[in-house]
Amino acid sequence: MDAISVIRTKRDKGELSPEQIDWVIDAYTRGEVADEQMSALAMAILLNGMNRTEIARWTAAMIASGERMNFDSLSRPTADKHSTGGVGDKITLPLAPLVAACGAAVPQLSGRGLGHTGGTLDKLESIPGWRALLSNEEMLSVLDSTGAVICAAGDGLAPADKKLYALRDVTATVEAIPLIASSIMSKKIAEGTGSLVLDVKVGTGAFMKTVQDARELASTMVALGTDSGVRTVALLTDMSTPLGLTAGNALEVRESVEVLAGGGPADVVELTLALAREMLDAAGLKDADPAKALADGSAMDAWRRMIAAQGGDPDAALPVAREQHVVTAPSSGVLTRLDAYDVGLAAWRLGAGRARKEDPVQAGAGVELHAKPGDTVTAGQPLLTLHTDTPEKFDYAREALASAYDIAPAGTEFHPTPVVLDRIA
Amino acid sequence: MDAISVIRTKRDKGELSPEQIDWVIDAYTRGEVADEQMSALAMAILLNGMNRTEIARWTAAMIASGERMNFDSLSRPTADKHSTGGVGDKITLPLAPLVAACGAAVPQLSGRGLGHTGGTLDKLESIPGWRALLSNEEMLSVLDSTGAVICAAGDGLAPADKKLYALRDVTATVEAIPLIASSIMSKKIAEGTGSLVLDVKVGTGAFMKTVQDARELASTMVALGTDSGVRTVALLTDMSTPLGLTAGNALEVRESVEVLAGGGPADVVELTLALAREMLDAAGLKDADPAKALADGSAMDAWRRMIAAQGGDPDAALPVAREQHVVTAPSSGVLTRLDAYDVGLAAWRLGAGRARKEDPVQAGAGVELHAKPGDTVTAGQPLLTLHTDTPEKFDYAREALASAYDIAPAGTEFHPTPVVLDRIA
Repeated sequence: MDAISVIRTKRDKGELSPEQIDWVIDAYTRGEVADEQMSALAMAILLNGMNRTEIARWTAAMIASGERMNFDSLSRPTADKHSTGGVGDKITLPLAPLVAACGAAVPQLSGRGLGHTGGTLDKLESIPGWRALLSNEEMLSVLDSTGAVICAAGDGLAPADKKLYALRDVTATVEAIPLIASSIMSKKIAEGTGSLVLDVKVGTGAFMKTVQDARELASTMVALGTDSGVRTVALLTDMSTPLGLTAGNALEVRESVEVLAGGGPADVVELTLALAREMLDAAGLKDADPAKALADGSAMDAWRRMIAAQGGDPDAALPVAREQHVVTAPSSGVLTRLDAYDVGLAAWRLGAGRARKEDPVQAGAGVELHAKPGDTVTAGQPLLTLHTDTPEKFDYAREALASAYDIAPAGTEFHPTPVVLDRIA
Repeated sequence: MDAISVIRTKRDKGELSPEQIDWVIDAYTRGEVADEQMSALAMAILLNGMNRTEIARWTAAMIASGERMNFDSLSRPTADKHSTGGVGDKITLPLAPLVAACGAAVPQLSGRGLGHTGGTLDKLESIPGWRALLSNEEMLSVLDSTGAVICAAGDGLAPADKKLYALRDVTATVEAIPLIASSIMSKKIAEGTGSLVLDVKVGTGAFMKTVQDARELASTMVALGTDSGVRTVALLTDMSTPLGLTAGNALEVRESVEVLAGGGPADVVELTLALAREMLDAAGLKDADPAKALADGSAMDAWRRMIAAQGGDPDAALPVAREQHVVTAPSSGVLTRLDAYDVGLAAWRLGAGRARKEDPVQAGAGVELHAKPGDTVTAGQPLLTLHTDTPEKFDYAREALASAYDIAPAGTEFHPTPVVLDRIA
């Protein structure tokens, strides 16, 4: 077996054999297959595809490259959620404690932001004292005592994926559906969750720009999970406009706490409840009532316990950016479009995100929305507030917003996009 | 400008801009673009192609990565030949001194063998004392005094190509016509020859398996050369069966000397003369008579001067392999097929070639042919003789020859493939 013959098979549109897949993933993890060989293979996969059999084997090989976790010692059923990433997507923050409050155990291994999409760990790190890095024992202990844990994935889980993900990031091979699906699912299956709900985002602010691509990714992942004994369901949800009214780390924590307190923007509440119901259903807790847990404060209690168990102070004041700049509406009418990608890019330019994995992020930076598509606006009213510690970036952020929104004459009919577009099980 | 956006352009079937091409070649040569990024780009080019404009710019950028040589100080017009490589392709050996004897200056920057195809430098190194590595000054001096020089390309010539060629070799991206064409032509144009004849091989023993692919490669290279002011013409020649009666280093030198002495196999003589006429024509020496130069010994004199000028002893005995094994004809009839690739592979397994650039080769190893397609054979007569210093490889070499030939009943009509299939100018 050698790397060149494996690359050649896929380059020439052939099907990779189980032996070729097992060998190439193992040899890459060990360093026998070089980065330049794996990136050529990744490009061939991106352009020529993999069928379901190949994707399943590829995923299994990535799982086999590391350790598998086990939640059998817990008294509660486990339920996990994964989002493919979007702008203002803070849903994990209210969702994990909410589902925990309803009786499931929620192990959320999360990532950091890269590019225009935010990262759950970056958001929570704006809470003074909160720690993302836990040992496997600490993770189990927090999960057991509070019902939910949100932390960084350990190095032992699917190391092949870790190495391959970093490689794809610099070789323009991120956007391959077989590689996205196997990357996500290898970590989730190795993590050992009993059930999994996938939030597959569609729209300008998401990796998947079309419903068709999103549906293919979702059904690939649902099949992978189901075949591995994980009860898996996917929701296709809208990412043409940011979720809620904030994009940025501390800004999104504040909004999440509002939702846990029974308030918050309607779309965030709707998606949080939809995902909570799917998770509880998949975990076998069909009688749980997440709306009640939001209303009666039990979800907020779970949040406070979870944050405190990881060293955070749930009562501490959140960081605020040093400077603000208000963007006003240039005309009166109906806001018909507010683009998720443009807002995400502006937040990133303001300091909320990073260009490289090792860059720091600003806790207070980001974009605050004062109107959502469908809202009536008046010329001169605040439309967006930009937050940053580096005001020299205001112009650069405003450039990203130059064609981010449309205002139509008052009275124009507006058809809102549903929050949940489809369900795939 | 960044590597990811360049890769993404080609991945998404776009046209690379001149600025993108200049930048990526320069940044790769400097090490700013990493090997894993260039291999992803090479795979995208292999699968999505480049148009003529892109190929021309890519070639120019590779030339610009290094120095350009200049033969203006010579009193003779320069003529160079490049073969895309085949089995038993010793043509450079008799051709260079023959064309020199007819009045042109022949600067042959040659390579070593890799895989089943032999390398000109490996062949000449079987002559005791002969040196492939010359400084630019030595090269010019040999060329000026003898009319021909065959040596390794210096490190200063198209260093981007050198780096990219090594990368393509390990990432299954060798077979991209735009990359093959630009690799060959960047070195030839940088070398500074005034005219160039391309011998584009077609058949099982060549990189190009079909006339269609060979024609595309040839016309791409002719356009590149012509646009750069090099008078360029290409011959498409048959590589379905080995050239001549030998494949192996010292074996091929011996056969080349036979041709220079006025003998040798008909196909080798025919191709040598055809290429010589094209080179002399392109160099403006239309009245030269290469057949006469072979017959009157002047080509042999040029050979002896050229070998001696590079430290070789033209009268020294050539190395002979320690052991021989004869493969006999299993039946009587007409030999209708003797496969170039299989014979090349057998010669390689016997020690004539190398698996990795740093491996040594055996001077005496190789395959000797006792019949060519069209010849009548008798059951039990010698068909091939295998030569090696490592007789434990005989079985391994014989395996490569298991289905290398067909013998049809006596009287079967046989249509020989012409040596020269087409001419592209």
